[in-house]
Amino acid sequence: MTSNEDGLLAERNPWPEKLESRLKDQFTFLIEVDRLKTVLRQSPLAAVDRRENDAEHSWHLALMVTMLAEYADEPIDVGRTVELVVLHDLVEIYAGDTPLYDTAAAVDQQEREEAAADRLFGLLPPDQATLFRARWDEFEARGTPEARFAKAMDRLQPMLLNWIAEGGTWLSHGATADTVRARTSSIGDASAVLWDAGQALIAEADRRGWTTPTGK
Amino acid sequence: MTSNEDGLLAERNPWPEKLESRLKDQFTFLIEVDRLKTVLRQSPLAAVDRRENDAEHSWHLALMVTMLAEYADEPIDVGRTVELVVLHDLVEIYAGDTPLYDTAAAVDQQEREEAAADRLFGLLPPDQATLFRARWDEFEARGTPEARFAKAMDRLQPMLLNWIAEGGTWLSHGATADTVRARTSSIGDASAVLWDAGQALIAEADRRGWTTPTGK
Repeated sequence: MTSNEDGLLAERNPWPEKLESRLKDQFTFLIEVDRLKTVLRQSPLAAVDRRENDAEHSWHLALMVTMLAEYADEPIDVGRTVELVVLHDLVEIYAGDTPLYDTAAAVDQQEREEAAADRLFGLLPPDQATLFRARWDEFEARGTPEARFAKAMDRLQPMLLNWIAEGGTWLSHGATADTVRARTSSIGDASAVLWDAGQALIAEADRRGWTTPTGK
Repeated sequence: MTSNEDGLLAERNPWPEKLESRLKDQFTFLIEVDRLKTVLRQSPLAAVDRRENDAEHSWHLALMVTMLAEYADEPIDVGRTVELVVLHDLVEIYAGDTPLYDTAAAVDQQEREEAAADRLFGLLPPDQATLFRARWDEFEARGTPEARFAKAMDRLQPMLLNWIAEGGTWLSHGATADTVRARTSSIGDASAVLWDAGQALIAEADRRGWTTPTGK
């Protein structure tokens, strides 16, 4: 967990007097969210031997949206979907990452993340605080085609990283192929094609020994 | 520079036979671009003591677009602008980062980046290769309001990081306030308000000794 016990990052250096207060608040927020680059996920990178952080992950999802939108079962607004993935993990700045295959951490996840959202989005001018909170709520509720596709990317991306790592968190967190299927099935809520592909990856990974054997 | 002398990352593990070739190409690209997370920029992070990478930077720009679009002098399509910033640095996977205050590296930058674009986007299915190349060309040419705003974010974001670092690359690369103004003036091509703010930051940074004194 990344805390901000030492106050806001931007408070280190007072803004020039001349800046309007709306812009000061926006810049303060934009510096505070630099912390997302320090929130580590469980996923191993493909390119080097270290774990991924939330900012890198969010960027990767954004690129995936622009490339894979053609497989969405319902029409989606690509730009708006990208906006959702860009902010979907911001609350983890204060709430920390909750690993997909860690059921204990999931218990109070919603409570922690809502408190974090209040705190983080509260830095913004009120109209933008409301807007950003509404987008995050939209992502979480999955009530729109855009939110469902964004969530699908959030499940498919770690699958690609685990695939190239020959197991990754599927092995380190003891996830069987059935568990992986259960935790990633929301891909199928957005795209039949991508869920078919996801299931093919899981089945093949299982054959190659990259998921945890049942009963272990 | 990040090379791929050892071949494509995705070639380590053959895809399941069952995947259609279009999807194989798209997944291969999506794994190859993981390398963007290893391309280091000069900018220091605000949250921890290390340099930023291109994926983190691209994510930060995307969030800035959604927050600061209200200051664009011309109407912009926010979603499309976000799409531009998400892919604007991809060519650096093979061409490397060219620091803003490094004039020597800038000499063959265009040539290196165009070769990298051919190579990287060439991994995609032809229609998407054309589309992604067109978007990158649009960003580079700055012929649209979206491209100009994207470029403005690309200049404003390191300014915020240098501000909070009390100098950052302005000091480490010997940039005077005049040099900083010259290298960031494209902010003014997209937004008078943000360029006013940028100039206020530079002037105040200069007063506080965070830019390099003239004549040094």
